[in-house]
Amino acid sequence: METMQATVFHGVNDIRVESVPKPHAGPGEAVIKITATTICGTDLHIVRGEYPVKPGLIIGHEPVGVIEELGAGVTGYQIGDRVLVGAITPCGQCRACLSGQHSQCGHGFGCEAIGGWRFGNTINGAQAEYLLVPSAQANLAKIPDAVTDEQVVLLADIASTGFGGAESGGIKIGDAVVVFAQGPIGLCATVGAKLMGATLIIAVDGDERRLAMARKMGADVALNFNECNVVEEVLKLTGGGVDVAIEALGTQPTFESCLRCLRPGGTLSSLGVYSGKLQIPYEAFAAGLGDHRIVTTLCPGGKERMRRLINVVQSGRFDPTMLLTHRFSLADIKQGYEVFGQRAEGVLKVLITP
Amino acid sequence: METMQATVFHGVNDIRVESVPKPHAGPGEAVIKITATTICGTDLHIVRGEYPVKPGLIIGHEPVGVIEELGAGVTGYQIGDRVLVGAITPCGQCRACLSGQHSQCGHGFGCEAIGGWRFGNTINGAQAEYLLVPSAQANLAKIPDAVTDEQVVLLADIASTGFGGAESGGIKIGDAVVVFAQGPIGLCATVGAKLMGATLIIAVDGDERRLAMARKMGADVALNFNECNVVEEVLKLTGGGVDVAIEALGTQPTFESCLRCLRPGGTLSSLGVYSGKLQIPYEAFAAGLGDHRIVTTLCPGGKERMRRLINVVQSGRFDPTMLLTHRFSLADIKQGYEVFGQRAEGVLKVLITP
Amino acid sequence: METMQATVFHGVNDIRVESVPKPHAGPGEAVIKITATTICGTDLHIVRGEYPVKPGLIIGHEPVGVIEELGAGVTGYQIGDRVLVGAITPCGQCRACLSGQHSQCGHGFGCEAIGGWRFGNTINGAQAEYLLVPSAQANLAKIPDAVTDEQVVLLADIASTGFGGAESGGIKIGDAVVVFAQGPIGLCATVGAKLMGATLIIAVDGDERRLAMARKMGADVALNFNECNVVEEVLKLTGGGVDVAIEALGTQPTFESCLRCLRPGGTLSSLGVYSGKLQIPYEAFAAGLGDHRIVTTLCPGGKERMRRLINVVQSGRFDPTMLLTHRFSLADIKQGYEVFGQRAEGVLKVLITP
Amino acid sequence: METMQATVFHGVNDIRVESVPKPHAGPGEAVIKITATTICGTDLHIVRGEYPVKPGLIIGHEPVGVIEELGAGVTGYQIGDRVLVGAITPCGQCRACLSGQHSQCGHGFGCEAIGGWRFGNTINGAQAEYLLVPSAQANLAKIPDAVTDEQVVLLADIASTGFGGAESGGIKIGDAVVVFAQGPIGLCATVGAKLMGATLIIAVDGDERRLAMARKMGADVALNFNECNVVEEVLKLTGGGVDVAIEALGTQPTFESCLRCLRPGGTLSSLGVYSGKLQIPYEAFAAGLGDHRIVTTLCPGGKERMRRLINVVQSGRFDPTMLLTHRFSLADIKQGYEVFGQRAEGVLKVLITP
Repeated sequence: METMQATVFHGVNDIRVESVPKPHAGPGEAVIKITATTICGTDLHIVRGEYPVKPGLIIGHEPVGVIEELGAGVTGYQIGDRVLVGAITPCGQCRACLSGQHSQCGHGFGCEAIGGWRFGNTINGAQAEYLLVPSAQANLAKIPDAVTDEQVVLLADIASTGFGGAESGGIKIGDAVVVFAQGPIGLCATVGAKLMGATLIIAVDGDERRLAMARKMGADVALNFNECNVVEEVLKLTGGGVDVAIEALGTQPTFESCLRCLRPGGTLSSLGVYSGKLQIPYEAFAAGLGDHRIVTTLCPGGKERMRRLINVVQSGRFDPTMLLTHRFSLADIKQGYEVFGQRAEGVLKVLITP
Repeated sequence: METMQATVFHGVNDIRVESVPKPHAGPGEAVIKITATTICGTDLHIVRGEYPVKPGLIIGHEPVGVIEELGAGVTGYQIGDRVLVGAITPCGQCRACLSGQHSQCGHGFGCEAIGGWRFGNTINGAQAEYLLVPSAQANLAKIPDAVTDEQVVLLADIASTGFGGAESGGIKIGDAVVVFAQGPIGLCATVGAKLMGATLIIAVDGDERRLAMARKMGADVALNFNECNVVEEVLKLTGGGVDVAIEALGTQPTFESCLRCLRPGGTLSSLGVYSGKLQIPYEAFAAGLGDHRIVTTLCPGGKERMRRLINVVQSGRFDPTMLLTHRFSLADIKQGYEVFGQRAEGVLKVLITP
Repeated sequence: METMQATVFHGVNDIRVESVPKPHAGPGEAVIKITATTICGTDLHIVRGEYPVKPGLIIGHEPVGVIEELGAGVTGYQIGDRVLVGAITPCGQCRACLSGQHSQCGHGFGCEAIGGWRFGNTINGAQAEYLLVPSAQANLAKIPDAVTDEQVVLLADIASTGFGGAESGGIKIGDAVVVFAQGPIGLCATVGAKLMGATLIIAVDGDERRLAMARKMGADVALNFNECNVVEEVLKLTGGGVDVAIEALGTQPTFESCLRCLRPGGTLSSLGVYSGKLQIPYEAFAAGLGDHRIVTTLCPGGKERMRRLINVVQSGRFDPTMLLTHRFSLADIKQGYEVFGQRAEGVLKVLITP
Repeated sequence: METMQATVFHGVNDIRVESVPKPHAGPGEAVIKITATTICGTDLHIVRGEYPVKPGLIIGHEPVGVIEELGAGVTGYQIGDRVLVGAITPCGQCRACLSGQHSQCGHGFGCEAIGGWRFGNTINGAQAEYLLVPSAQANLAKIPDAVTDEQVVLLADIASTGFGGAESGGIKIGDAVVVFAQGPIGLCATVGAKLMGATLIIAVDGDERRLAMARKMGADVALNFNECNVVEEVLKLTGGGVDVAIEALGTQPTFESCLRCLRPGGTLSSLGVYSGKLQIPYEAFAAGLGDHRIVTTLCPGGKERMRRLINVVQSGRFDPTMLLTHRFSLADIKQGYEVFGQRAEGVLKVLITP
């Protein structure tokens, strides 16, 4: 039996790079040889035991690679094609997908959300030499020759999610937007707000390096919450509130500050992953009478989404490689987890190459 | 000085029908002679001191009447025209109005929401013989001869709000919808869901008379929360959650139940007026990853909105007089407040005629 | 080799019911035993040589049946399940489908439109004993026991298309809508307008029987174009134009009349199949400055669309069997074509049962 | 009686700068002292007799100035405030405005479109020393100190219209867009497409100077229709058609080419002013089955629109002064008309200062 190296979750704070069977493609599936991947904040939650997955699972969900095998029924591709696969792999054929809610893909349609997130969650993931891709017809996005692997690896999740926050917010030309937290997702939300025509983008964080990056990425104003009352400042800058507030962290204070920054009729676009109960303060919510909207977005996936994001990069509108601050081989991925987990050395994203 | 009879708020639990000066129309304004009005749940909040207004204010915000005076610059109307005026009176000319958010009307654009609600809140209201209408050009909706005052009086607020909850929810043909609470607003939300093409409308309340009315109004299923586990029942009926859940009460349990009834990607459309902190449970919100939307709606006003609602009635799609369970003269309005406040005698809405 | 009876196109005005090989399901496919189907106006175009298909093709695209075979990879179904399949069979996995434009399905994404229409067009169709269904996972909609085959057979195309015209028009509560032509599609557009909350629905045709049916289906006003100037009448009834005009025939006069009936900012929703050049008159188009929208809609397909339409029927909102005026066996389908083609005997739709 | 200098239309090809009475502000109105204005293509149509206005009318509709008089009821402004007024002056209070279709403003709601365009059309215009502004409360947009008159004068019409073409097209991140004609409106449509996140913007014109400007303004590709088959080239560049095609000229060939460049499901956003009958070719329209949309846009006006456009300039996203190629005093405006009318000297827009 052929084997490969992969990052396997064995238990809380116990991941190991080890030899596992190499996957093979069944009908409708594909196997890709991974050429670039990265570590996500969600992977940290998994390793720390904050998000439960089964021991024995290969983790990681941001895959770039080369097609190694194509299962029966997958057409229009060649072995050797370079492809990007989104973190979310919609089947395109279930009730959720046919309703246009591909991230909530599930062959049934129960109340369980996030059905479309499979890699490194319910099936083996991308921090490995090879990856089995389900619903391959819907999920393999070819990478043009003019674009490198490094340029697209961050599109699989963080750019798709960050831009998604701007899109779900319904940003329009001339909008004022605040983005709370300028980690990788928040930075991409800042970029997304710029791409959609916001003309006052206020980036909020407590880390000056991240605020400096936010300015480079298109923020008009960067506010350090250690140095000012952010809500007051935003209300002053906007003459009474932003059109759209994007939450990119997943905490009560950032969620609540977003609400407090909204103008009447404004939209809170939430990207964070929350734990425990969120509270909506009475007055920040105008007692329910402010015509406010709160929208949440799970990373959009599928090959058409990836194709569009590749276009964004290829056209020069956005250079995601600015966020790739560190590089490790798959063999050394545990070091990558350490640097990324400790937010050491100004780390934003870590590139992993098998 | 001419006087008129009006319902004046003097303090908590102290309203009096008394003689006050009759208003006159300045530029852009109109005075109407009230022929029909009603009492709203919000009026109860005011009388009970739960929503603060200034002593001396005439309350009430659901006016039907006859034009008595037209101020300079108001064109296209005649003295004597029968008109309906919405509870919310947008100016049409401020930043909020020009952005299409007429309910949040305000000549500035600060964070204070609900700027468009003036009658019986920031200016004198409709429980009187005469009413001064601001921004009259934008707010006087003529009533066709074929339609009676009683048929339209409930359009000013409850039908506009209830339908608004269905509209903000974005209901589509074939949707499954649950409406929590079948008071006047909730019943109108039920009607709105029917009008927009929902094909499974589940009405929830604890009062069998209200549930019976909900069935008459178009609900396919009526659930009494005293007799079943509503969330479980809704999930079973829908095979995993509704497309849209409408909250028409303003409490933590109904808000939370709405969230728990949603399918992934579903919308919670909130109409309630909340007090205190609302909580969003982690699991009901899919930790923020369910592509859920929460939207709130303040009663849409303005003459075009009223014109459309009058069409709904005139076309026979909806008969609001079914909700007018009691009738009082203006002189006896305090009795009306008692019956309505105690939810006595199966009361839904109370008609007041000066 | 097993055979079956099927309606085969041999050339212009030459269709024959004859014996052909019975199909078998490959991976991702299914075979259904047809229990009910019908004849569409498009089939007439094919038979008359107005729409080209290859000789030897089995025609028909409105299938109801029982699952006979399931190909590899199709899950969640059992042999014997009763299913409805839409006229359009999106794959769910191509660029068009993943963009939410399932009717334009095509594994590439060229300029050729209507890629999602396959049955009786590019692959064998439904006027046969058995039908091979491509992309079965996305296209088999189970029929609840409480609903009969006759109740759902018209959902595959005409109801989906007609409702689609109302949906693409963006009809809102209180809208005034005119529907030009009250054939089966136009009648379904009338129903769709009613379902979405239009409160003045004006049905136009030259056949009194169809106008009578339109009134039964929800039209508020029925205009016979032989007896009045329809555009003038519509402008008078609406006080200056409809919000949405639906074209359900495919001719220059109806298209142009739709435009002339629009209010500024109104929407022309076109369902017709046109031949030759359409003209947009300068003045009817406000020289391009009227904020008009013209939208076209190809029948939406896929199992989720069918599920929703079945709900419309099951909830009692719409009874499509009222449109089934004639019944023929598959052996006698040529008689059905004659009656339907000549619009004889007040025919609306013809039911075919193998 | 006070007089002022103004550009008066006396008949075909007969405009004169002459002395006329200075206007005064009635209730709800304002008078502004013009500090900058410009000449629009529509003014050329008027002068040439192609668009009829009454002799004696002052023409021009792109006003920047200083408040000189405020009529009764106009609040929140001071004499001396610098303001921009849109070419379209919605009242905010009629049926069209309250429906959100401010460009179609009209106190009635008849079929006559473009009701919101008054300046230099139905009332005196901006090519004068003073201008009477109707519905002033809705139409005076204050100009921040940091922004000059020259920076905002092109926002009144061409930027609002051009951006409007992009907005009506519903451009999304990653879209491919073609813009036919790179005159001032087309160039602004190109900018609008960029602002909304299009990542392949193809500008088409026959004038190399305009194509060069298009590239500066954000076009990714510029095609000279004298040198290539534009439709073929666009289909090749996009792999089968653009998402949105913007028509910014108003001719049959550009309109038709737009249609031919669309992918199935794509949108033609039309900004041109057409004369005579437009034709929609059968095959370019997929016989009505391509899920195409054709949308038209009249310049959006009102002070909130202007405020947003000023933000676009102030934020540095767009520098409209690049389009101001020539400058004339009001006294010399006829020279301006000549240069602009003959498209001499690479003219794009002409600044007029009284």
